[in-house]
Amino acid sequence: MRVAGMISGTSVDGIDVAVVDMDEERIQPVAQGMVPYAANVRNAILAVSNRVTHVGDVARLNFLLGELFAEALMAVCERSGVNLRSVELIGSHGQTIFHEGDPVEFCGRTVASTLQFGEGCVIAQRTGIRTIFDFRNADVAAGGKGAPLVPFLDYRLFRHPERARIALNIGGIANITVIPAGATSDQVIAFDTGPGNMVMDALAPPFDRDGVKARTGTLNERLLEELLKDPYYRKAPPKTAGREQYGEEFLSSGIDVTTAAELTARTIQIAVEQYPETREVIVSGGGAHNSYLMERLRATLKPEVVTSAELGVNIDAKEAILFAVLAYESFRGRPGNVPSATGAREAVVLGKSY
Amino acid sequence: MRVAGMISGTSVDGIDVAVVDMDEERIQPVAQGMVPYAANVRNAILAVSNRVTHVGDVARLNFLLGELFAEALMAVCERSGVNLRSVELIGSHGQTIFHEGDPVEFCGRTVASTLQFGEGCVIAQRTGIRTIFDFRNADVAAGGKGAPLVPFLDYRLFRHPERARIALNIGGIANITVIPAGATSDQVIAFDTGPGNMVMDALAPPFDRDGVKARTGTLNERLLEELLKDPYYRKAPPKTAGREQYGEEFLSSGIDVTTAAELTARTIQIAVEQYPETREVIVSGGGAHNSYLMERLRATLKPEVVTSAELGVNIDAKEAILFAVLAYESFRGRPGNVPSATGAREAVVLGKSY
Repeated sequence: MRVAGMISGTSVDGIDVAVVDMDEERIQPVAQGMVPYAANVRNAILAVSNRVTHVGDVARLNFLLGELFAEALMAVCERSGVNLRSVELIGSHGQTIFHEGDPVEFCGRTVASTLQFGEGCVIAQRTGIRTIFDFRNADVAAGGKGAPLVPFLDYRLFRHPERARIALNIGGIANITVIPAGATSDQVIAFDTGPGNMVMDALAPPFDRDGVKARTGTLNERLLEELLKDPYYRKAPPKTAGREQYGEEFLSSGIDVTTAAELTARTIQIAVEQYPETREVIVSGGGAHNSYLMERLRATLKPEVVTSAELGVNIDAKEAILFAVLAYESFRGRPGNVPSATGAREAVVLGKSY
Repeated sequence: MRVAGMISGTSVDGIDVAVVDMDEERIQPVAQGMVPYAANVRNAILAVSNRVTHVGDVARLNFLLGELFAEALMAVCERSGVNLRSVELIGSHGQTIFHEGDPVEFCGRTVASTLQFGEGCVIAQRTGIRTIFDFRNADVAAGGKGAPLVPFLDYRLFRHPERARIALNIGGIANITVIPAGATSDQVIAFDTGPGNMVMDALAPPFDRDGVKARTGTLNERLLEELLKDPYYRKAPPKTAGREQYGEEFLSSGIDVTTAAELTARTIQIAVEQYPETREVIVSGGGAHNSYLMERLRATLKPEVVTSAELGVNIDAKEAILFAVLAYESFRGRPGNVPSATGAREAVVLGKSY
């Protein structure tokens, strides 16, 4: 089955698209690419996400993003010489607008919630392809935090009979999947370690290419020690971090990009050290392109640090591949969440279908 | 097949539930009821709908309403002695939070949009029943206004080989379905006529029981004539009216409940007069309980005015029945919109499935 996967991550750069051919055994990447958001769209997303806004802009943004996701798939297919009509199923994560995995009091009840945009009905109608979307909602409905979802793919791609491995994805937020040697899927542990690129991006917009600015700056050790005291980093999983933890209030601490890079590396280190039997840390996501950050990780972490590309999975395509794989599982009527990672009461089928 | 339908209308009173047994021929009501919103929930909906708000409250409200819709179905089933496990499918309209059927400029594109809340994944998981929801989105994605959807049901229920009929539903907004004698489904015309109960409700909260206040008040003829000049009322269909047309700004005109009742009757009259061959106007929705409004309609309209109850369809259950019927059609893979009513480019399957 040929399946397309799409996501726009927390760094709100653009839409990542992957097309894979897959069956019960293999996941074969066919095409991959990223379509950046125009500046006005990125601004509209940031204006709506986690801010006070008119609900009309919320609704409009959902339908606009549906168009843009459909166009992104068509563009990547054309660019890669893949016939759109050969794609049989789409899995679209959309753009996270709000995520609150831990329930809060609301109208006298405790409510957890999540909101992703990129209207699935629009994607399906523009492409003529069945679309599965809103993957986090069913996990939240089942008492989970709705994240992380990547452990399902990490387990399928990287499990090893004799080597304990950690898959590290450095997007806007960084997260790890701990896969013990010879693990079954319910032995996988996964959680957000803390900031990924979003703090560094905000301090060196649009992003600190190769970590040049971080490398030439000066580390503010005192501030770093202060920030590392955040109890989040030592809290036992399951746990998820959101954009809101690293928003304007966080940036107002006076943090610089060198200290932000070090905070990213150190919070990853704190997480990895909980699993001393780990032999390899397999890095993917935009942060894997930051050579300074990779250097700091290699200096800080005890296990060998490799990129997912060295294991045959494009660094930038992994999250998009995830939603192709999750759509395939849902289409087959099978669950896609890992309850030990999200905290859900049970494994459930993910995604709405149109 | 036993199917439940649910909706909370624009008057934001509570959740209407209907359970029907249906097949290709018949639609047999089995149970029906309304579960009112608690005051704090109603306030939260009104605070989010068409206002400036934090997107977190938007996301939380969607998940909270999912719980309340599931609970409403369970309550009505218990009350009516219907075993929840006998229900095979749920169609849930949810609560409209925002609706903009006419495209507006947004980020350099023209975008139409709609937003209904009551998370379908929550309804499905709490009840254990497949749920179809977000019925308006696919029609909007197909270039339609996402409303009205009721013509599909009106046509199925009320078409007559020799009598031209109009089905009139008076909810928060009032809408009519024009069904020519012996019509095929693509000859049906439907649109919102203008205000329904929402203006009267706002002026005599929570609502003007039996129209007692309207009956004893004085009609402001000058204001009425002024309000009737709104070009909306004479605009050719397809057209839809939203809460925002009759919100705070509208109420600030100094309108009283007697004038609001007359405005409702007169705007319905303007619409009905476009179809002089009509023999009967079949009234449903909350407004059919307002004996003063019914009296004004009988005085104003040329065709015979009857309630849907006189034709075997509970006045308050019609819209909930609609979403049961639309879910059934979607489950069978068949379209549920009437393009001549919504303006969609084509008939499309409605609703997302979980």
